[in-house]
Amino acid sequence: MTGMNSTDEVKALVFDVFGSVVDWRSSLIADLTAWGVSRGIVADWTALVDAWRGAYVPSMNEVRTNPARGFIKLDDLHRRSLDALIERFGIVGLSAADRDHITRGWHRLKPWPDSVAGLTRLKTKYLIAPLSNGNVVLLTHMAKNAGLPWDLILSAELFEHYKPDPETYLGAARLLSLMPGQVMMCAAHNDDLAAARRQGLRTCFFARPTEYGPLQNRDFAADQDWDIVARDINDVANQLGC
Amino acid sequence: MTGMNSTDEVKALVFDVFGSVVDWRSSLIADLTAWGVSRGIVADWTALVDAWRGAYVPSMNEVRTNPARGFIKLDDLHRRSLDALIERFGIVGLSAADRDHITRGWHRLKPWPDSVAGLTRLKTKYLIAPLSNGNVVLLTHMAKNAGLPWDLILSAELFEHYKPDPETYLGAARLLSLMPGQVMMCAAHNDDLAAARRQGLRTCFFARPTEYGPLQNRDFAADQDWDIVARDINDVANQLGC
Repeated sequence: MTGMNSTDEVKALVFDVFGSVVDWRSSLIADLTAWGVSRGIVADWTALVDAWRGAYVPSMNEVRTNPARGFIKLDDLHRRSLDALIERFGIVGLSAADRDHITRGWHRLKPWPDSVAGLTRLKTKYLIAPLSNGNVVLLTHMAKNAGLPWDLILSAELFEHYKPDPETYLGAARLLSLMPGQVMMCAAHNDDLAAARRQGLRTCFFARPTEYGPLQNRDFAADQDWDIVARDINDVANQLGC
Repeated sequence: MTGMNSTDEVKALVFDVFGSVVDWRSSLIADLTAWGVSRGIVADWTALVDAWRGAYVPSMNEVRTNPARGFIKLDDLHRRSLDALIERFGIVGLSAADRDHITRGWHRLKPWPDSVAGLTRLKTKYLIAPLSNGNVVLLTHMAKNAGLPWDLILSAELFEHYKPDPETYLGAARLLSLMPGQVMMCAAHNDDLAAARRQGLRTCFFARPTEYGPLQNRDFAADQDWDIVARDINDVANQLGC
């Protein structure tokens, strides 16, 4: 049909969060460094944060490949990984309350500079929600702390499956009472978009080339013909006429 | 403990919605009357709305007592009830699109005059969410239309159980990563609060004596010693120091 765009039927935008909407690395390094100073605890917090993020995908994959053991929410996976890293890094003197506080650092992540403005514009025309591996209360606290104006919170926890399992993308469409093609997955990660596209969702890419700091080795650019390729979330709003 | 209140540990407030936060009866009568005039369709819309609400609890009870048939979301129950009532009332000329529009009247309900102001105050200190038998997208559209400032949407649909099944109250606490006693159910319906209290939640009552119009025959006052008894949602905020 002449003049028809692949995004014309889209009613809802669902966003990857860690790295795509919030800058987890800089946020956690700043948060933990300041907390360490205030408590007089010396550690290589930057290395700890990078190793903690390194444990993220393997910890979820263990849940994904062992469904009979039951779903474990991300706060609990983060805490387990942290306990192991505290041991490995030889950090001493951290109580259970300290470890809980550090783990809740993921609830206090800061948005990229364009995120709040871009989402606020998109919200005028679309339902907007995270579709993240973060658990519900993590995403809720993050939204409240960072001012992310979500219409609702969608999370892997609701489906008891982590992305890129199909249940997450299809579950989001089901709860929104939409067909998959009426939902657009928005992310800075090509693999997330590829998994969403396989389930029939529309796709929107914007790069976050500093997400991993000096360790970044991927996702500098779109690697497929995603329905939208934008500079950032404000540019997504531009392209969707918001 | 001297000076300790039963609500001191509360971190999240979850609200019944139909009747407690929004005025479904006046909203639907006004919405359908205006729509009927614009379409030239004559019907006793007030009687239809009252009969539609009358079908609400029986339709959910059929789901609650037949779990093997699977969960049916409220939009679909509303649509089934509407189809039967259109027949019973002898209303002619309604297309499928018309019936969808009428059913989505539940997405367009208006808040009571104190709801938005009261919730906005409570949100400064607590996580606030609906805990309603409305399905997720119904509650999301309603929040967007009415300006209800929820932090997240909690719905019977997420638990595939309707209130007053225990799974709803306990499921809300689980997704919030809270103990039941850290969650307070807020409602204009004593039976909802009684079911929440049985699961260990805190309870907050405020009356909506005009909810059912001339048909109201209950819930004019608290019938147990709920943790909070307030005049309206602004008064809940007063009593919780928000």
